[in-house]
Amino acid sequence: MLPKDLLREQLCGFKPYVAGRPIEEVRREYGLEGRIAKLASNENPLGTSPKAMEAMCEAVKGVYLYPDDNAYYFRNKVAARYGVEWEQVYAAAGSVEVIELCGQAFLNPGDVVLTSERTFAMYQLAAMKAGARCVQIPMIDGGYRYDMAGITAALNEKTKIVFLANPTNPTGTWFTSEEFDAFMEKVPESTLVVYDCAYDEFVTTDDMPDPWKYLKAGRRILILKTFSKAYGLAGVRGGYAVGPKDIVAGLMLVRIPFNMNVVSMAACMAALDDEEFVQKSYEFTKQELAFLIESLKDLPVVIPPTQTNFILIDTQKDSKWLFEELQKKGIIVRPMGGNGLPNAIRVNVGLHEDNVHFVEVFRRLILS
Amino acid sequence: MLPKDLLREQLCGFKPYVAGRPIEEVRREYGLEGRIAKLASNENPLGTSPKAMEAMCEAVKGVYLYPDDNAYYFRNKVAARYGVEWEQVYAAAGSVEVIELCGQAFLNPGDVVLTSERTFAMYQLAAMKAGARCVQIPMIDGGYRYDMAGITAALNEKTKIVFLANPTNPTGTWFTSEEFDAFMEKVPESTLVVYDCAYDEFVTTDDMPDPWKYLKAGRRILILKTFSKAYGLAGVRGGYAVGPKDIVAGLMLVRIPFNMNVVSMAACMAALDDEEFVQKSYEFTKQELAFLIESLKDLPVVIPPTQTNFILIDTQKDSKWLFEELQKKGIIVRPMGGNGLPNAIRVNVGLHEDNVHFVEVFRRLILS
Repeated sequence: MLPKDLLREQLCGFKPYVAGRPIEEVRREYGLEGRIAKLASNENPLGTSPKAMEAMCEAVKGVYLYPDDNAYYFRNKVAARYGVEWEQVYAAAGSVEVIELCGQAFLNPGDVVLTSERTFAMYQLAAMKAGARCVQIPMIDGGYRYDMAGITAALNEKTKIVFLANPTNPTGTWFTSEEFDAFMEKVPESTLVVYDCAYDEFVTTDDMPDPWKYLKAGRRILILKTFSKAYGLAGVRGGYAVGPKDIVAGLMLVRIPFNMNVVSMAACMAALDDEEFVQKSYEFTKQELAFLIESLKDLPVVIPPTQTNFILIDTQKDSKWLFEELQKKGIIVRPMGGNGLPNAIRVNVGLHEDNVHFVEVFRRLILS
Repeated sequence: MLPKDLLREQLCGFKPYVAGRPIEEVRREYGLEGRIAKLASNENPLGTSPKAMEAMCEAVKGVYLYPDDNAYYFRNKVAARYGVEWEQVYAAAGSVEVIELCGQAFLNPGDVVLTSERTFAMYQLAAMKAGARCVQIPMIDGGYRYDMAGITAALNEKTKIVFLANPTNPTGTWFTSEEFDAFMEKVPESTLVVYDCAYDEFVTTDDMPDPWKYLKAGRRILILKTFSKAYGLAGVRGGYAVGPKDIVAGLMLVRIPFNMNVVSMAACMAALDDEEFVQKSYEFTKQELAFLIESLKDLPVVIPPTQTNFILIDTQKDSKWLFEELQKKGIIVRPMGGNGLPNAIRVNVGLHEDNVHFVEVFRRLILS
């Protein structure tokens, strides 16, 4: 199916990212009618920030013009939020774009990238696509949590980039301030640390690291944020990365022009001001997560503690059939085989009715 | 400014694409008030397809969900339009994305890309970024038109990709059926021909090649279309490429997930049905181009014949000052130094009042 004679050598054998299945695709496949619960992509079931909605309706009037390719206003707004310079901000089409561009900008074939196993698949894919080698350190604490000591021990002068997601996807767990500080003490100044905070807004613990203090101290750290989760803007593709100016300049060099579109820029700027919506999403997520966990606690499954808007459910045996059966009942979850967790599914918080429906169907399936 | 120790080797010395300047940027720089005419990026001054506007207002309601990463409905709609299979269609974030991905998917360092000089800058940039060598054949007919015979003569077994824009940007000229047929007769079956029709909807001549017949005959040709020009959707980033299934599969392999956003997909699908808007844009462009050309014909400048929505004005001497002076008067055009035409500016059709204003200011400047 691929043009073998034409394809770039390092791409032979490359398997691209597999997204959560869209509602309409599942509807077609199973001939389903009625409501389908998509609990597969960690989207916000409350919808989109109302301020962002308003901004988008206004922005569509101007889409006959190209986006500002420098994203001047967007970058300035983000910069003001964190007290950094605007040239330290990269305006992104979602954080997947930044992860990919890190590979394109900074990795040569043969370079080494360091991360955890069972983490966001894009880290490994970005490395592979660039022809680099991705070293993945096994997880600890039952196999659900980053082994920061192990990652630290694996650092060497060949390590060009370390990708860290905190809280992490797909296990939902996190590493602590103490663990991160110990890691940062050992990281060579030349190594780029990519710190991905996609689920930041859902964190309830006090014991999360502060990556910003390292950025402000001049360390080579790139902090990633997305508008796809708490802000409810997955569909327009918006995110940003904040880091040293030269790292951001490197990303700017390799990106495709006009990467962040007009509607996304307007929506994300408005969303940044919508603290009320983020707070509401935080409270709702906390409450529904508690409901999900409580409703499943007597089942023979393991659910690691989470600081995100989703739970990982490890059924201790192959879970492919569960994924299929849930789909037949109009519930889309994410199978975790591709992330090294073939026994697990990942389920995000949906509207309460969807969570109730999921619990009901899942309990029946797992106890059958 | 760049992280030299970290940057991928082949990127040292790479200069990224320079976009047309946005209105607000010029306003800030010159402290301008009132209307600013942006005639720099070949956008549609009539705005956006009304059908697309309606579709976008509806689509924003669903942006809390990720886009369909397979763009199933969009690709099927395009496929039906051309009588091809949906796997032959690549759903793109503008045609610049496709050009870039051709490099990422199909070029190894040292490979050869063939194109014309003074053509769309992204062809060369995509080649350079991939570490390939870009051979640019000089233009003929005063230096404004593709030399298809020259390009044909330069083909050899090392030529991996040939990029052709027809009509071409930034000169506005075109190559004929006869010229293209003679070229296709000599192209090796293994070479990928990328045929970029960004300005298709503005063509008035009958003598344009038909790239589709080669695709249908099984040739390795990838046809690029954009929604940024006639459809008035530059701001949302939408386009597509149609080619052999394996070439499209290669693009799918290297793209960033969710490359085409929800709003863009909805807008572009609706725009495809808006023949009325395209027809209106065609008529308007034809009329205003005639006005521009007529109004400048007595001046000591060369304006090559155009099949697009813009004109190239070659002033026969360095034109950087003109670009600056026009900006001071609230008119943004595109300087052409980066395209090997330091004596020229490129000016697209604006609203009639903007065209009148441009003619007035330009005449005064050139005759001063």
